[in-house]
Amino acid sequence: MKAEIIAIGTELLMGETQDTNSSWIGSRFPEIGLEPQWVTLVGDDLTRLTDIVDRAWRRSDVVLTIGGLGPTLDDLTRDAIAKMFGEEITTDPDLAAWLEESFSRRGMSPMPQQNLRQAGMIPSAITVPNPLGTAPSWWIERDGKILATMPGPPREMMNMWTTEMAPRLKARIPGQAIMSRMFKTIGLSEAAVDEMVGEVYDMDGVELGVYAKPDGIYVRAIAKADTEPAALSTLMAAEEKIRGALGEYIWGTDEEEPPVRVGELLKARNYKLAVMESCTGGMIGSAITDVAGSSDYFVGGAITYTVAAKIAAGVDGSIIEKFGVYSKETAAAMAVAACKTYGADCGVGITGIASNADEKAPDGTEIKGGTVFIGVAHPTGVVVEQYRFPSRRALVRNRAVTAALLQLAQAIK
Amino acid sequence: MKAEIIAIGTELLMGETQDTNSSWIGSRFPEIGLEPQWVTLVGDDLTRLTDIVDRAWRRSDVVLTIGGLGPTLDDLTRDAIAKMFGEEITTDPDLAAWLEESFSRRGMSPMPQQNLRQAGMIPSAITVPNPLGTAPSWWIERDGKILATMPGPPREMMNMWTTEMAPRLKARIPGQAIMSRMFKTIGLSEAAVDEMVGEVYDMDGVELGVYAKPDGIYVRAIAKADTEPAALSTLMAAEEKIRGALGEYIWGTDEEEPPVRVGELLKARNYKLAVMESCTGGMIGSAITDVAGSSDYFVGGAITYTVAAKIAAGVDGSIIEKFGVYSKETAAAMAVAACKTYGADCGVGITGIASNADEKAPDGTEIKGGTVFIGVAHPTGVVVEQYRFPSRRALVRNRAVTAALLQLAQAIK
Repeated sequence: MKAEIIAIGTELLMGETQDTNSSWIGSRFPEIGLEPQWVTLVGDDLTRLTDIVDRAWRRSDVVLTIGGLGPTLDDLTRDAIAKMFGEEITTDPDLAAWLEESFSRRGMSPMPQQNLRQAGMIPSAITVPNPLGTAPSWWIERDGKILATMPGPPREMMNMWTTEMAPRLKARIPGQAIMSRMFKTIGLSEAAVDEMVGEVYDMDGVELGVYAKPDGIYVRAIAKADTEPAALSTLMAAEEKIRGALGEYIWGTDEEEPPVRVGELLKARNYKLAVMESCTGGMIGSAITDVAGSSDYFVGGAITYTVAAKIAAGVDGSIIEKFGVYSKETAAAMAVAACKTYGADCGVGITGIASNADEKAPDGTEIKGGTVFIGVAHPTGVVVEQYRFPSRRALVRNRAVTAALLQLAQAIK
Repeated sequence: MKAEIIAIGTELLMGETQDTNSSWIGSRFPEIGLEPQWVTLVGDDLTRLTDIVDRAWRRSDVVLTIGGLGPTLDDLTRDAIAKMFGEEITTDPDLAAWLEESFSRRGMSPMPQQNLRQAGMIPSAITVPNPLGTAPSWWIERDGKILATMPGPPREMMNMWTTEMAPRLKARIPGQAIMSRMFKTIGLSEAAVDEMVGEVYDMDGVELGVYAKPDGIYVRAIAKADTEPAALSTLMAAEEKIRGALGEYIWGTDEEEPPVRVGELLKARNYKLAVMESCTGGMIGSAITDVAGSSDYFVGGAITYTVAAKIAAGVDGSIIEKFGVYSKETAAAMAVAACKTYGADCGVGITGIASNADEKAPDGTEIKGGTVFIGVAHPTGVVVEQYRFPSRRALVRNRAVTAALLQLAQAIK
């Protein structure tokens, strides 16, 4: 079924707020059998807003609006939809009571009169509750088509999609079961992944997509069939081929995130972690501490941007001198020193060249830009690996963080 | 003049690539007197693409397309425009020669035949060169309107906008000079900034916008007048009022970025920097080393997520015990220890509560969630400040990084 998104707000057009909602929802359309056709960003302007709602209703099967549901006079989504259908907005007493109550629960009673706008309804619409905000959604089914409004704040929108919109839409999309899975890889180029999974492209009922993301290359398989068991069996057949082709390069699926996974593994084993970062300059620590509760397993570490800093943090200077700062030996020594200096069970040491400039090792061999050495020390040993990432500073650093976290997860598993 | 953007590519609709181009350009429209009216994302589909190009051409004064200029068969922007104008695409011999030459310069001769698509032209269009890629742009002026194509890769698009499109458009927008300036603040809420600059809202010929960004609150002033000197004088009057109202809360303007600024200041004074990070967990190091060439002034530091790690990195444990881990004294001690341990001239120490949980200090006083202490040690002293940031983990951490870098810049200036 053809679906389109209308994202509403002058701040989106002016580039003051980046619209990330449309992209988030668009990526979830295929899972429920919707084909994304258009995304339109429009300002808080009744004429233009009504124009696009009308056009969307005529050309698509499913129309989702995002934003413009607030209480102020420039929140015009409800007005535009009412105008388009030629219906009048009246205050819904149940909604009004619910709004009053949620204001009073938050100690904000009496509710500002203006908020009554959010209790407005038209005859064609039913209410979908929004437990995270004061903007309930409208759900309209007419002439075999669906129009639904969603709140603009991403947290509210995501919750609304997951708990209400996706299940409702899925239940109404006829005659097709769709299942999908994302496979996340590291260490291969987009072209290489594309070639290696070539065979899967030809499978009946399977759609494949290959995407370059900051933390590696992703492959999405979507299986379509008449029934859920049939779709699942197709997806499993595709997964077998994809895993056969990509093997160890796959590090995770779907929503898995390396910092969260590393945290779970460390907590389960009651291990403490320390890091020693050179080329990533603190990014690994930053990624790990981005997870709330990381102080349960993360003790800290060192950012060692010079040889002197590495030695100050406990690395044996003679190793650096002998093997060079960009070497497996130095990475391993950094990982071990991180454990010792900071009293941790596991350590990550990372050293490499984030730029695309080549460097010379002490033995005269050339080390290419984008080469990164990652050492992981754990209670029963040290694992060290050499990587070569695409040589643009930001990409090298991002991929190195993912690789380090995955190598750590592998080592403690 | 009314302007709209069409961003082209199925990957944008599917959420595989986040469209950041439209937002980037949209934020630059007001500077040259364009009013953003619509942004449409559309897939690589000739029918839908032609439909939106046609609609845009009829309803707007300026239409910018982004993307779909590559050499493959699903790059359809040229085809859609040609179809809309009813013109035929022919190979432009000059463009073809330029393409051949740029392939040969990169050692990729002979050029794949398919790339000749990028040398296609229609009678209504002239070429705008794209020195960073193989996709030249079209520029079409007809019936008092303008349509231009731009390449999709952000680096190429930004260069094309800055060097070609913005000056060309500005020269054609009649009778109005527009100048703008962005003021970047930290330490105030959006509502507080809005109130403090209230007087400026009423100034003739000035438009004001207040925006919450991850690193603080921004204020944009746009001055419009008949001539450039008049616009400049209006902008300067607005700037005086804004600076009068916001004073020390303003830390920079326009494209200024704290990590770059700190780097310049450190380099000019030949100072070395070390950090000791608790609640930011490596983010300051990460931000500093994001700048190429940061190894000239950054030596490294410690991520100290526990008391033991702080002591291991050189902080006097009795200070932490006496004043508490969240205190000005500990932040100052961390900054000083960072200098000593890593042999730097300047040090940043940062400790605080990234979550919204309140904590107790050793003397029993309550420390609120979002409270952060930042110490800066420099050759002639130590400055330490206490901040309170809006208490959502990601926001607290981002604001704390900006505050720390600004405090450092202030101290060494």
